[in-house]
Amino acid sequence: MKELSQATPSKIVLLVIDGLGGLPHPESGQTELETAHTPNLDELAGKSICGMSSPVAAGITPGSAPGHLALFGYNPVDCLIGRGVLEALGIDFDLRPGDVATRGNFCTVDAQGLICDRRAGRVSSTVSAKLCALLDRQEFEGIQVIVKPVKDHRLVVVFRGSGLSEKVTDSDPQKLGAAPKEVKPLAEDAGLMARVANQFLQFAANALKDHAPANMILLRGFSEKPCFTTMNEIYKLKTAAIASYPMYRGLSKVVGMDVLPTGPTLNDEIATYKANFEKYDFFFIHVKATDAAGEDGDFERKVKALEELDKVLPEILALKPDVVAVSGDHSTPAVIEGHSWHEVPVLIYSKYCRPDKVCRFSETDCLQGGLGHIPATDIMPLAMANALKLGKFGA
Amino acid sequence: MKELSQATPSKIVLLVIDGLGGLPHPESGQTELETAHTPNLDELAGKSICGMSSPVAAGITPGSAPGHLALFGYNPVDCLIGRGVLEALGIDFDLRPGDVATRGNFCTVDAQGLICDRRAGRVSSTVSAKLCALLDRQEFEGIQVIVKPVKDHRLVVVFRGSGLSEKVTDSDPQKLGAAPKEVKPLAEDAGLMARVANQFLQFAANALKDHAPANMILLRGFSEKPCFTTMNEIYKLKTAAIASYPMYRGLSKVVGMDVLPTGPTLNDEIATYKANFEKYDFFFIHVKATDAAGEDGDFERKVKALEELDKVLPEILALKPDVVAVSGDHSTPAVIEGHSWHEVPVLIYSKYCRPDKVCRFSETDCLQGGLGHIPATDIMPLAMANALKLGKFGA
Repeated sequence: MKELSQATPSKIVLLVIDGLGGLPHPESGQTELETAHTPNLDELAGKSICGMSSPVAAGITPGSAPGHLALFGYNPVDCLIGRGVLEALGIDFDLRPGDVATRGNFCTVDAQGLICDRRAGRVSSTVSAKLCALLDRQEFEGIQVIVKPVKDHRLVVVFRGSGLSEKVTDSDPQKLGAAPKEVKPLAEDAGLMARVANQFLQFAANALKDHAPANMILLRGFSEKPCFTTMNEIYKLKTAAIASYPMYRGLSKVVGMDVLPTGPTLNDEIATYKANFEKYDFFFIHVKATDAAGEDGDFERKVKALEELDKVLPEILALKPDVVAVSGDHSTPAVIEGHSWHEVPVLIYSKYCRPDKVCRFSETDCLQGGLGHIPATDIMPLAMANALKLGKFGA
Repeated sequence: MKELSQATPSKIVLLVIDGLGGLPHPESGQTELETAHTPNLDELAGKSICGMSSPVAAGITPGSAPGHLALFGYNPVDCLIGRGVLEALGIDFDLRPGDVATRGNFCTVDAQGLICDRRAGRVSSTVSAKLCALLDRQEFEGIQVIVKPVKDHRLVVVFRGSGLSEKVTDSDPQKLGAAPKEVKPLAEDAGLMARVANQFLQFAANALKDHAPANMILLRGFSEKPCFTTMNEIYKLKTAAIASYPMYRGLSKVVGMDVLPTGPTLNDEIATYKANFEKYDFFFIHVKATDAAGEDGDFERKVKALEELDKVLPEILALKPDVVAVSGDHSTPAVIEGHSWHEVPVLIYSKYCRPDKVCRFSETDCLQGGLGHIPATDIMPLAMANALKLGKFGA
């Protein structure tokens, strides 16, 4: 791909409708997409080549990271991002090379030091923020420890300094009635990391001892920010990410996109897209509301979120990007109340897309599309080809 | 495949309609194939299993070599053929083992020796042939240098002798304002090759100095003929190639086919097929006119080329080959005026093919076919199976 890609003025929009795919409502027999009134998506489907996208592999339910990495053209099984890094990305924390990030939980330990609540009664974000301030900015053996609240009982701990390693065990035993575990090195060069983590945990135990229920923390997913070849290098694109949610901004940074400042609403995202249209030739636009509604099991709200997106779609198309790819990172059917393994509808529009007979953007209709069933990792190469940004392979 | 294949009397025809796939005409919304009146192809499709073939991978536009190698069952990414070898095959030059071939351009250099026209004003084939004769049959350090004209400014330079290597850099800097580059070895055993190439280039500079605009040559794509396992070995077939164009004859030779002498027209090819039907059990028949029309952006001429092919199809079927596979090496939509990444319709006819409901051989109809979307490399195994030439795998 890197050898074939070439910079050209044509522009690509990758519109990711988070958790797009759904399942039929038990009463109507129609999925969220089939229930929603989406005349603009349907009209675009009519001019596009459609199909079904498989995020990772048959039967596999992806998290947000693999789901998005696949859409960005990265093999989601090879390109793993650790739990700690993901949590840090989720609060817009700017990880530096060499940093090791971990996901933390405030928890409750009893008089014997055994865990009796892994989430400290889901302590409020306000309390959590105060307790994080107690723990923040410690230093052990020259390693700085940065502690940031996430939401409720969740926090991020970042270890910064030289000689660290992600190859250590978790302190979180992930069960009740056990004591927090000692962090142990899993590689020869991970001794410093384990020692510092244990010293910090000892410090935290003391600092928090009078703050029950949040009288201890558990750490898991020690990880370093991976060093992927950027999309700019692979595709020779000037890439921009437009996403209200920190996690998706973080993922975009990992693959080298410019993350554009934007507001919390879909309209804010569209305004950001319009304001920056001339400056970039690739736009990742992320729509979160669909997934959030699906996770809440709220079929109607997911339908509304799809209809709201449909209303702003003409504004995206009005600037005449050469290629528009619309899909989701995974399915989030309201009836499942979470991510699922189901394939996701996808359409690719361009002047050269070879349209099929699909004229409704839905799970059932896209099954008949010209793309057939494709891995999500095919979407970027197809978008690149449709933008006439790929040279010929072989003579 | 090699372990399962077995020689039987059944006969396979692989009919390759070069650049077969197309895109809708902006006015009619119909592709070239959909526009063409092809009753015979359609009737055959009705008795066949149909589908869409992907030459290399999603979004990848193949050159003729990878497109054909995939149809012959070779992984086109692993089985690369160098630029120089392809150019030599294209003029029916009989490369021997150990020969290193390069693609050459006549170019113009200024008084400082800097390139001011990479194609020497696209010097005519007549002039080019005369200048090639000036350069032909030199010898340096025991290596013979053979120089043959191709077309316009293009030539082939073949180095022949022992101890050569393809692992050297190009002399062509592929930009204006630069001097031709010295050829450098990329491996320890490539020193002789680099020295001889540089001596030849020095000789060429002197020989051509008064022949502006063609006062220098540029060489690129030093390559040796690859040594693939032949189709005869893999499939235990007696294979024959019937192709008017030298490049396809050359590719057929690389995979071990007998290249049958034939004339320039489709009727010549059919006559050759008939005359040799008893002698072989596999026929690759190549149709060039479709691709040529597509490359020229001539929608109507591509439609006519398809209709002409359709008219002779009954003659191919009349000899009752057991299996007929029809596809293309890639798409060449007239609206793109070149090869493209789009999938290519494919049909496989045999007594045992399990026909689907497709009764029109077109991009839209074949989408609904029983084969679904297949890599082009699946066509040969399917043809072999339909010819009952493959044993059972496992007990």
